[in-house]
Amino acid sequence: MSLLVVGTVAFDAIETPFGKTDKIVGGAASYISLAASYFYKNIQLVSVVGDDFPDTFLNTLKSQGVKLDGLQIKKGEKSFFWSGKYHNDLNSRDTLDTQLNVLETFDPVVPETSKNCEFLMLGNLVPAVQQKVIKQLTSRPKLIVLDTMNFWMDIALDDLKETIKMIDVLTINDSEARQLSGEYSLVKAAQKILAMGPTTLVIKKGEHGALLFNKDEVFFAPALPLEEVFDPTGAGDSFAGGFIGYLAKTQDISFENMKRAIIFGSAMASFTVQKFGTERLIGLSDADVEARVQEFVNLVQFDIALVNN
Amino acid sequence: MSLLVVGTVAFDAIETPFGKTDKIVGGAASYISLAASYFYKNIQLVSVVGDDFPDTFLNTLKSQGVKLDGLQIKKGEKSFFWSGKYHNDLNSRDTLDTQLNVLETFDPVVPETSKNCEFLMLGNLVPAVQQKVIKQLTSRPKLIVLDTMNFWMDIALDDLKETIKMIDVLTINDSEARQLSGEYSLVKAAQKILAMGPTTLVIKKGEHGALLFNKDEVFFAPALPLEEVFDPTGAGDSFAGGFIGYLAKTQDISFENMKRAIIFGSAMASFTVQKFGTERLIGLSDADVEARVQEFVNLVQFDIALVNN
Repeated sequence: MSLLVVGTVAFDAIETPFGKTDKIVGGAASYISLAASYFYKNIQLVSVVGDDFPDTFLNTLKSQGVKLDGLQIKKGEKSFFWSGKYHNDLNSRDTLDTQLNVLETFDPVVPETSKNCEFLMLGNLVPAVQQKVIKQLTSRPKLIVLDTMNFWMDIALDDLKETIKMIDVLTINDSEARQLSGEYSLVKAAQKILAMGPTTLVIKKGEHGALLFNKDEVFFAPALPLEEVFDPTGAGDSFAGGFIGYLAKTQDISFENMKRAIIFGSAMASFTVQKFGTERLIGLSDADVEARVQEFVNLVQFDIALVNN
Repeated sequence: MSLLVVGTVAFDAIETPFGKTDKIVGGAASYISLAASYFYKNIQLVSVVGDDFPDTFLNTLKSQGVKLDGLQIKKGEKSFFWSGKYHNDLNSRDTLDTQLNVLETFDPVVPETSKNCEFLMLGNLVPAVQQKVIKQLTSRPKLIVLDTMNFWMDIALDDLKETIKMIDVLTINDSEARQLSGEYSLVKAAQKILAMGPTTLVIKKGEHGALLFNKDEVFFAPALPLEEVFDPTGAGDSFAGGFIGYLAKTQDISFENMKRAIIFGSAMASFTVQKFGTERLIGLSDADVEARVQEFVNLVQFDIALVNN
């Protein structure tokens, strides 16, 4: 029983209308692992950093129960670095700088003990690299979740489509769903994407929530209306981490349980955006998480007694 | 016991990516009355048309239980006409033509029998005209709901603010909430707007659903993900009609019941957008409405058992 998380562990420099950071810790796998660790403790991380990466953050991961056997630390090399500036509405951003560094030659190696992992979360990466991870496994995981982005649809669509065939749950945002399917209607887009392989699709709509589709059903989870959204970086990854962490904890991959899982994922994302970087995801208590989930319950639950149903 | 609906009854000519209409029946009060009529039968309409307006539609309203004593039919004059073209995403539109005609001199007269109405729905109109209606009433209604738009915030803000003080529920869209409050965060915007007078605020987010706020609580109702959105015209009015119709039917204006009411309102809006104009709002059965509401229940209901709550 284990959850394998693959993705970037990196530095970000972020500017939002509310402030600006120097290099802080970021990367998809950082957010995913932290968010998942509130639900499940047997997490193995596969990633790469340079020797410029701070031990303090790695120790934080360890103390949250995240194993780092699969984390390559490249001597004399630099960690992946991304810098971006958000526009006033926080829904769009400009990339100011991208330095691939260690990511350029990243060749993921799954530790022996995780080759039979039950849950696999593939954070956004080159699709061919994501596929390499799947091929190292000795048994098919119970659930493979893959996150990707429009960039790979632009430059590596064939690889992406091949990788998508091998997974169970795809998570993308609404404009990516439209790009991948060629359909404007998200309902139609979902059905076209599900025909490409995955049994389940999550369409992330940022501040407008997320939709969960399988061939027959649809579920909607709202985003929590917040007084302040400070920094949206990592929201989608925190969402994915909460989602798969909850599924790994409950060992139940039914659609009904995935509904719960995306509520927990949304709760984790709602923490992330309240501070810069990973700050708000560190040191939460179980009670904090439960109280946040209760806010989601209060936000959407209503009680209608229908005569004919 | 009655529901008074005030607003335009008019002609629209609409172009969407899916087609184009000649002059068809539209107007806020047409959508509001039709949507409300599925829940409540004692509806009085106050509006104005020219003698060019078709009896067929007026007979449809009557057959739905809508009383037309307050509908002025101006001999030799023309009905209000609006023409617009929606962009590809259906979220924005250009106005191609606006002919005020009878609306230019509209002086609403509330029939004697409705001056003690229990529920008042003021559709989008000149704020001073909305206010005139309130001043004709002999007793304070149990609930006054007002819909407005950015246009009045631009050219008649003082009148609008004065009118808003006299009502209970304001319905506006997200960009209007931001404009009226000067706040980007909808949570902050809501609290500022509630301080202007209304006890309750509905922020409509189109395809992204709607938020219901009072000073202490917030509720979110999604929009139904549809395969096709054919024509968004009248969606907000149908939403308002379903909302106040359900409240009038149940005679319960608690926040809990307003949650149900905005689900019913969302259901009525989801019908409207499936065809041009008012077409889909005519001839629905109770079973149609219930089945649609059940889709909303299925869309958002989940079951999480929290340990600490």
